[in-house]
Amino acid sequence: MTRADTPWRATILTLYPEMFPGPLGVSLSGDALARGAWTLEARNIREHGLGRHRSVDDTPAGGGAGMVLRCDVLAAAIDAASPTGDPRPRLLMSPRGRPLTQARVRDLAAGPGALIVCGRFEGVDERVIAGRGLEEVSIGDYVLSGGEIAALVVLDACVRLLPGVMGKVQSGVEESFEGGLLEYPHYTRPRDWEGHGIPEVLSGGNHAAIARWRREQAERITTERRPDLPGAGGASQAASRSITGPSRS
Amino acid sequence: MTRADTPWRATILTLYPEMFPGPLGVSLSGDALARGAWTLEARNIREHGLGRHRSVDDTPAGGGAGMVLRCDVLAAAIDAASPTGDPRPRLLMSPRGRPLTQARVRDLAAGPGALIVCGRFEGVDERVIAGRGLEEVSIGDYVLSGGEIAALVVLDACVRLLPGVMGKVQSGVEESFEGGLLEYPHYTRPRDWEGHGIPEVLSGGNHAAIARWRREQAERITTERRPDLPGAGGASQAASRSITGPSRS
Repeated sequence: MTRADTPWRATILTLYPEMFPGPLGVSLSGDALARGAWTLEARNIREHGLGRHRSVDDTPAGGGAGMVLRCDVLAAAIDAASPTGDPRPRLLMSPRGRPLTQARVRDLAAGPGALIVCGRFEGVDERVIAGRGLEEVSIGDYVLSGGEIAALVVLDACVRLLPGVMGKVQSGVEESFEGGLLEYPHYTRPRDWEGHGIPEVLSGGNHAAIARWRREQAERITTERRPDLPGAGGASQAASRSITGPSRS
Repeated sequence: MTRADTPWRATILTLYPEMFPGPLGVSLSGDALARGAWTLEARNIREHGLGRHRSVDDTPAGGGAGMVLRCDVLAAAIDAASPTGDPRPRLLMSPRGRPLTQARVRDLAAGPGALIVCGRFEGVDERVIAGRGLEEVSIGDYVLSGGEIAALVVLDACVRLLPGVMGKVQSGVEESFEGGLLEYPHYTRPRDWEGHGIPEVLSGGNHAAIARWRREQAERITTERRPDLPGAGGASQAASRSITGPSRS
């Protein structure tokens, strides 16, 4: 079966399934969802909760504040959503995880989909992470109230790369900015705005000069703002860490 | 007027106001929104669009794919939403921006609120960034289809820190993990799960030993996974870059 026949499949395990698809039900991702380019299933972990109250959490061993998501409950939810043989990676959104990169996004988008576990409370019982092969993924060095919005970030980043979602034009632009560079500045009409014009080179019609100027600007901005990126310092080699350019995240 | 009397005010400029509050209308942030601890206004940039079609974008000067958000249109939207004297910072969600950190989140949450501009298309005309004092902020090194989900990330991170939203217990826990460390592993009942127990020290009731074990685990995990963080390498000094621990992002 070719890729075009098989939608990219996302399954979310959460205590707040009503948060999905949320913003992903609108615009490009919403259109793609509606026409079946990807599927989204949000399953409530509480369906596997224990007892009359469908309890999912308990106090931390060793004491401390907060509550911890039980490994048995989460494992049951995972097993029900992703039976043996499911080829999809299983992500756990967590600030302890490996930072999400565009390279990882590309890998995920090229695969069959993803199972994404959204933590709440103080965290999840450590044993279920190894026990069910969860890959901890962090979207950044800040703390959210739960993994749900982080899951939306992963899904949005992946879905826009699926065939036909953004269109070929956008994908082409993006490729040209890989290599660890932030994007050059954009300008459009009006030509004069509040006393500020558009850089002359952009109006000259000299395509080589425009390309050179954009490249120089991208290197300057990257060097000034993100000396940690491989494109900083004027280096022009392709880099393994790929941050793409369009001002969209 | 004390802080408790003044809600934290968020204004979003977007082409998709229907994406808000989205997931922030649920759970803790939704409760806090309902009781007025913060306010959220999503305004459509297109209200300031030009002509019969309310056009907001145009082709990039110098050529290239995609469309660029016009500076005059976006400036008009900003001026209408945030008149002179508005003390709130103005953020532009962009992968070119400074990476969001928990320290910046704390600053934002301690202030009066934020105006957040969500880009779409290829980017925004560079002139409006300086012209309206926009601070470019990135939530991570990946590309999204627009700034809207990135804005949800910023809001969620800020709102959970507002007085009374998470409760004192959580805030206390979080403080204790600043200093550039990822969080230690959590465990809860059942004591045995699929042949895996809970580390013995956590059942001993020796609080000093538990605190020491947790600290060692946090240092080990940080060193293994994020050698770039200040807490890596067993260093125990407080660090200016603060990543807090709970497994929630």
